[in-house]
Amino acid sequence: MSEVTRMALSVDTAMADAATAAPLLAASEPGDRAGWLRAIADRLDGDAEALIALAARETHLTEPRLRGELVRTTFQLRLFAEVVEEGRYLGAIIDHADPDWPMGARPDLRRMLRPLGPAAVYAASNFPFAFSVAGGDTAAAIAAGAPVVVKAHSAHPELSRAVAAHVDSALALSGAPRGAFALVEGREAGRELVLDARLTVATFTGSLSGGRALYDLASARPEPIPFYGELGSVNPVFVTHAAASARPEEIARGFAASMTLGVGQFCTKPGVLFVPEDSAMTPLVVEAVRASVGGPMLSGAIRDGYYASLDPLADREGVELLAGSSARSDQPTPTVYGTDVTTFLAHPEELLEEHFGPAALIVRYRAEGDLLDAARSLRGQLTATVQGEDGDRIGELVELLAVKAGRVLWNGWPTGVSVTYAQQHGGPFPATTAPHFTSVGTTSIGRFLRPVAYQDTPDALLPPALRDANPWGVPRLVDGRQTE
Amino acid sequence: MSEVTRMALSVDTAMADAATAAPLLAASEPGDRAGWLRAIADRLDGDAEALIALAARETHLTEPRLRGELVRTTFQLRLFAEVVEEGRYLGAIIDHADPDWPMGARPDLRRMLRPLGPAAVYAASNFPFAFSVAGGDTAAAIAAGAPVVVKAHSAHPELSRAVAAHVDSALALSGAPRGAFALVEGREAGRELVLDARLTVATFTGSLSGGRALYDLASARPEPIPFYGELGSVNPVFVTHAAASARPEEIARGFAASMTLGVGQFCTKPGVLFVPEDSAMTPLVVEAVRASVGGPMLSGAIRDGYYASLDPLADREGVELLAGSSARSDQPTPTVYGTDVTTFLAHPEELLEEHFGPAALIVRYRAEGDLLDAARSLRGQLTATVQGEDGDRIGELVELLAVKAGRVLWNGWPTGVSVTYAQQHGGPFPATTAPHFTSVGTTSIGRFLRPVAYQDTPDALLPPALRDANPWGVPRLVDGRQTE
Repeated sequence: MSEVTRMALSVDTAMADAATAAPLLAASEPGDRAGWLRAIADRLDGDAEALIALAARETHLTEPRLRGELVRTTFQLRLFAEVVEEGRYLGAIIDHADPDWPMGARPDLRRMLRPLGPAAVYAASNFPFAFSVAGGDTAAAIAAGAPVVVKAHSAHPELSRAVAAHVDSALALSGAPRGAFALVEGREAGRELVLDARLTVATFTGSLSGGRALYDLASARPEPIPFYGELGSVNPVFVTHAAASARPEEIARGFAASMTLGVGQFCTKPGVLFVPEDSAMTPLVVEAVRASVGGPMLSGAIRDGYYASLDPLADREGVELLAGSSARSDQPTPTVYGTDVTTFLAHPEELLEEHFGPAALIVRYRAEGDLLDAARSLRGQLTATVQGEDGDRIGELVELLAVKAGRVLWNGWPTGVSVTYAQQHGGPFPATTAPHFTSVGTTSIGRFLRPVAYQDTPDALLPPALRDANPWGVPRLVDGRQTE
Repeated sequence: MSEVTRMALSVDTAMADAATAAPLLAASEPGDRAGWLRAIADRLDGDAEALIALAARETHLTEPRLRGELVRTTFQLRLFAEVVEEGRYLGAIIDHADPDWPMGARPDLRRMLRPLGPAAVYAASNFPFAFSVAGGDTAAAIAAGAPVVVKAHSAHPELSRAVAAHVDSALALSGAPRGAFALVEGREAGRELVLDARLTVATFTGSLSGGRALYDLASARPEPIPFYGELGSVNPVFVTHAAASARPEEIARGFAASMTLGVGQFCTKPGVLFVPEDSAMTPLVVEAVRASVGGPMLSGAIRDGYYASLDPLADREGVELLAGSSARSDQPTPTVYGTDVTTFLAHPEELLEEHFGPAALIVRYRAEGDLLDAARSLRGQLTATVQGEDGDRIGELVELLAVKAGRVLWNGWPTGVSVTYAQQHGGPFPATTAPHFTSVGTTSIGRFLRPVAYQDTPDALLPPALRDANPWGVPRLVDGRQTE
């Protein structure tokens, strides 16, 4: 990798360039944007070894973990290129004029999704590739045709600049307009960015406090803009009596592996586990967690925040430390607390606070009805998991969890979020600020789009996706019927 | 129509009932909800004469206008019933497990849209049927499976209660759960409603100040909720030189008719008209407006607000009164001001304020470039219209307008919003607070839904729309391919 010397851009310059680029991106062809996305993926893959080494130095994440994350990142860019070329994401609908429409003659109406305009992407600390400079939000925005200004995360500044340099080069060499992408740095730039009048949408992955502060700024603007914040989740796991009897070791090992993966620094880390009181689950989980390894965290600030978040557990009567330690260390040890369901239901808000690191709470319950009460006490979640067996009469719990979470899992673990068409990474507040949307999967493009309808507009003035000849071959709903 | 004696519900009671009903609605079958929607439509049609007479008394709108609005309202309820039965609105996506998925083996993931939960609908003054108690928002929420608490508009209280009584009866007789619908009244109830912790989403149609106040409350909640406010629009119309030469009388008549329809009390009323300086347009428009009739407004408060909104025009140097009057009257006269494009571009914010009533501003321009400058000065709009001719080289203007507005019209008039699949009634702020969404057309259901993904979940625990056998026959995207 060549040495990166890159001038930090001011927010004003970045946004001025983005505003200039916006109409050019909006007018670009799907094949153009697909080419840009693939060019970025190719550049990153071509420099993988150096990027992974740099990421490992800055984040303390392991090389295999980072290698997998880069694979995911470039796969995602290429998958979005396919989605753009296919065109279904445009949601094109054509209603031909109809003099006999029952409410009165209707005009010719044609609707499609179009890019919102300049977008801000606030990078995350814990996915230095997949939720950072060239991560899912950037891929989705470029796919949509929205210029992106990324606010780098301070935990991996050199990697951010190196990836940005690759994105710059890839976009320039593949013919993207100047201003389609920019990187800005620093907390003050982040604040300035969300307040910039030219900004039309922002996405954020990070802490509840940081995300809420930016959401409040976005909402209080003279012209509010959509803000898609993914803020926090404890990702509860519910183990039925039958599952605890049938597969106790497997569940204990699976839980310990998921909660300690990446030193517990995943938004989908399972942070609370409900197990039958009269089962062998608790000692088995404790054993599995004790056998897991900790490690250095992403940054000193994140480590300090992690330990501070344990205080309420350490101080709460009725909650006991079962494994690990709340004593500060440079390399936190996997840590588990335990309590009973009565204590839990008396203090659900406090005991459901997120601990961003390798800690979890085991809650021992008696009857299946306790699980329903526990599910009702949940705030919004990214995920909720049931470990069950075929005979379990668990429909009511699954239904309750689907009301609380964006993704419901059966006999799996919430970490390792696959990028697919059906994936949903979102949920009611505080999981996200915008429950309609997702930040993972192909439907995440929708965050950067808004519908526009054209009434009785001549063919030549319509966007190609809405013209009679359908030159891009976009799937469309025509007079209420889907056309492939 | 029987006399309506109806206890006003407290917000707390209404929301408690809605929260109880929410899981029952979420679990209801499409055929159930379609039946409820049709039952409401049938009840309203069955009492049409009495309802129209009551509406005319309270709103001062004409009987033909109200009759057409009721047709639209019951059509909309029935169209949504069809949409629910068809099931495409669920956005069902199935990705089967795939060990060879390029980023790593993927699990079975199945996604669909599910109801958000209890919804608040703030009724509008100007559509006592179509955007009020049993209007589009209520229809969309019930279609989605979300219980609705409607905040009645104070301008037609008796009609609100009469319609609510019909909705109550229709829902009860067609088997809907108690709590699926409620009506509350009064400003304080409106405030309490948006702050209720059980509420998950709110929709609003009304003034910029009222909508912004509710949006701010919704955003500042401990758990913010989506708020879909439709707040204001001036719906600019751009007449090209060629159109002004070819069809001056037709355009003048069309504009006057659209701006004075319903005494100018439409959110899509065209409030500013750009015409060539060197054309006959201005005197023709003035003549057509002078030939139009005014009338009583919806309420005294709305009339007072209308006159107050004219003050900046009346006081602005370079703006002249061309027809009508800014002098207060119980039955405002259609009124037109005129100015030149230089004055307009010097004060666009002030001259683009909405006047909710029969007033508009004519702006005289010289070159087509003036139209581009004027378009760039616009804030977000519900609609933007071009009156042009086939030879016009107008692509850049149309493209600019598509960035500013939710609907772009060619040689039409923005009032009279058809309810169809492709309709879009929304736009960037201040047209709406949520540019991704629409409040008219079948896609308006999306405001009351959020995606949920199920991972590796046994068939029996999945919602029917995601089961292998697809018992409801829902269109689905399976492994990236659409199935009808």
